[in-house]
Amino acid sequence: MSKEVAAKNKVKFLAFFPDLVFELEVMLENYGMPADAINWFKRSLNYNTPGGKLNRGISVVDTYVILKGYKSWDELSAEEFKKAAILGWCVELLQAYFLVADDMMDQSITRRGQPCWYKVENVGNIAINDSFMLEGAIYKILRKYFKKESYYADLLDLLHEVTFQTELGQLLDLITAPEDHVDLSKFTPAKHSFIVIFKTAYYSFYLPVVMAMYLSGITHEKDLQQAEHILIPLGEYFQIQDDYLDCFGKPEDIGKIGTDIQDNKCSWVINQALRLASPEQRQILDENYGRKDADKEAKCKEVFDQLDIAGKYKAYEENIGKELQKRIADTEEDRGFKKEVFQVFFDKIYKRTK
Amino acid sequence: MSKEVAAKNKVKFLAFFPDLVFELEVMLENYGMPADAINWFKRSLNYNTPGGKLNRGISVVDTYVILKGYKSWDELSAEEFKKAAILGWCVELLQAYFLVADDMMDQSITRRGQPCWYKVENVGNIAINDSFMLEGAIYKILRKYFKKESYYADLLDLLHEVTFQTELGQLLDLITAPEDHVDLSKFTPAKHSFIVIFKTAYYSFYLPVVMAMYLSGITHEKDLQQAEHILIPLGEYFQIQDDYLDCFGKPEDIGKIGTDIQDNKCSWVINQALRLASPEQRQILDENYGRKDADKEAKCKEVFDQLDIAGKYKAYEENIGKELQKRIADTEEDRGFKKEVFQVFFDKIYKRTK
Repeated sequence: MSKEVAAKNKVKFLAFFPDLVFELEVMLENYGMPADAINWFKRSLNYNTPGGKLNRGISVVDTYVILKGYKSWDELSAEEFKKAAILGWCVELLQAYFLVADDMMDQSITRRGQPCWYKVENVGNIAINDSFMLEGAIYKILRKYFKKESYYADLLDLLHEVTFQTELGQLLDLITAPEDHVDLSKFTPAKHSFIVIFKTAYYSFYLPVVMAMYLSGITHEKDLQQAEHILIPLGEYFQIQDDYLDCFGKPEDIGKIGTDIQDNKCSWVINQALRLASPEQRQILDENYGRKDADKEAKCKEVFDQLDIAGKYKAYEENIGKELQKRIADTEEDRGFKKEVFQVFFDKIYKRTK
Repeated sequence: MSKEVAAKNKVKFLAFFPDLVFELEVMLENYGMPADAINWFKRSLNYNTPGGKLNRGISVVDTYVILKGYKSWDELSAEEFKKAAILGWCVELLQAYFLVADDMMDQSITRRGQPCWYKVENVGNIAINDSFMLEGAIYKILRKYFKKESYYADLLDLLHEVTFQTELGQLLDLITAPEDHVDLSKFTPAKHSFIVIFKTAYYSFYLPVVMAMYLSGITHEKDLQQAEHILIPLGEYFQIQDDYLDCFGKPEDIGKIGTDIQDNKCSWVINQALRLASPEQRQILDENYGRKDADKEAKCKEVFDQLDIAGKYKAYEENIGKELQKRIADTEEDRGFKKEVFQVFFDKIYKRTK
């Protein structure tokens, strides 16, 4: 897909969001909700949902297009686009629910180039309830548009399952790497793997594809399994890239200055370093990781360089790339699934630098 | 039901909770979740779920017993008790989810005689994710035990709907009566009614009864409607009692000293006073309500006495009592519903002083 087509699709996807906000507004009016509360909710929806890259939501529509054998979004009927876009926006609402809460738990300041929602004047801790309502909006919308579908209960189960998995990943992350208490002995590669798979891979990669599968009627247990078999390691690889780029990426590429070292993040980089460090290097990491101090951060990076973590990453990337390509090639298509779905994800991600 | 039987039933209901915790523990083990995170979740479940009066959860079992025509819990088969108790504990988990978050939003200090969860050492803002997981536990459990039931999707819809309604009530409450900014012109009896019905009545009264109705197969649309027609005003009356007792109840009866006036709560009492106050009385309320100051609180109470709010409450109670009795008497039983369900709730609540 060319950049121009992707940009055009994004515009179309984005243009659908106000319709959903309007639907939710009407629902709240029907409850008899006073106007100031309706306006509050609308503001939260608009502030927290559409401002990101929308990759997750758009990938529902993209995947549906591939599974139906269409060449482009232009072949979607109005009804097909609407249903796929609704599911896509449900993924984005789920992400908004997580991010509003994560920002409070991490005490973050900005998100997507604007103050975090809880930092906005007069919002504060009300953001907790707002995050609940972003999640609640998903089920209001699904009930209206999908209640009559044979897969409705399965769709709800999928969302509950992925939501819970994400919360499990978030819990492990929070208790393994609290920002105010450094204890590197808590970090292990196994925990890192659990955190990234549960906190990121399920909702970012597995969820959008399986939603598109339900919508297109491709729901054989084996197809769901092969989606998991490829999309979970792909999502893990994606997050490991994120961890790598936070430390080794160029700020002009990634659009931010990495903070994982100072923030005591349980990232792939530190886990590899801990695995390989000599007792002396380990001591340097223990004394310098997770401190809000540029000099201490630099000392950690020195150890990472001594251990050639960047080289280890390149080797990991080669290996996982081959393994994923093999799995994609082995995908069974005889029940209607198309391996192109996986290939498109892979091509977007492999060896990315931003 | 005698006090002894109620106490015995509560013991039986409470004794079932560890089984659910164990089930959830096994589920987390099956995800490969590390032990420290499993222990964290278990601790949150045990700390936040069973410590209250359990009226809501127990009322699921009580209602089911009545609908089946049983004389007591002793007539329930093991399987029947298990399923009713699971639904009852789902209501308690839902309440735990709300309370953990509400305490953070209200900056409360204690809950049920112990520190609020977010006030416990090392918990802090992780409590936000813990509240999410208390909600998530509901759907893990329901999926395991109710997936095969014909009413499974309806049960999920019911929970989503009631959860969203409660969040709507909480939002309106939070923006109408922020603790740090008094503006009595925002209060109206209509908003008060919306807040108590949405924030309390649906999940505390309507939800447990409808769950028991699904379990016993009494799910005609008209029966669901008459449940709403009686349980929502009953729940509103219950919360108005709470508001009244906070101001006029005896501390030795209600087991606490009321704080609604100092906390700027949008309670039934202040809304009645605002409706009846002269301009002079209104000014006193504007200048004294919602301040952390015992003298100012006393001035508000003087105005309440001048306006005979206690007398107004007694009149309201007489009227709502008659209206509810009329509605209970008019309940249609020909599709299998039993008006005794409503009468039991009514008798527990009417003219309570604690």
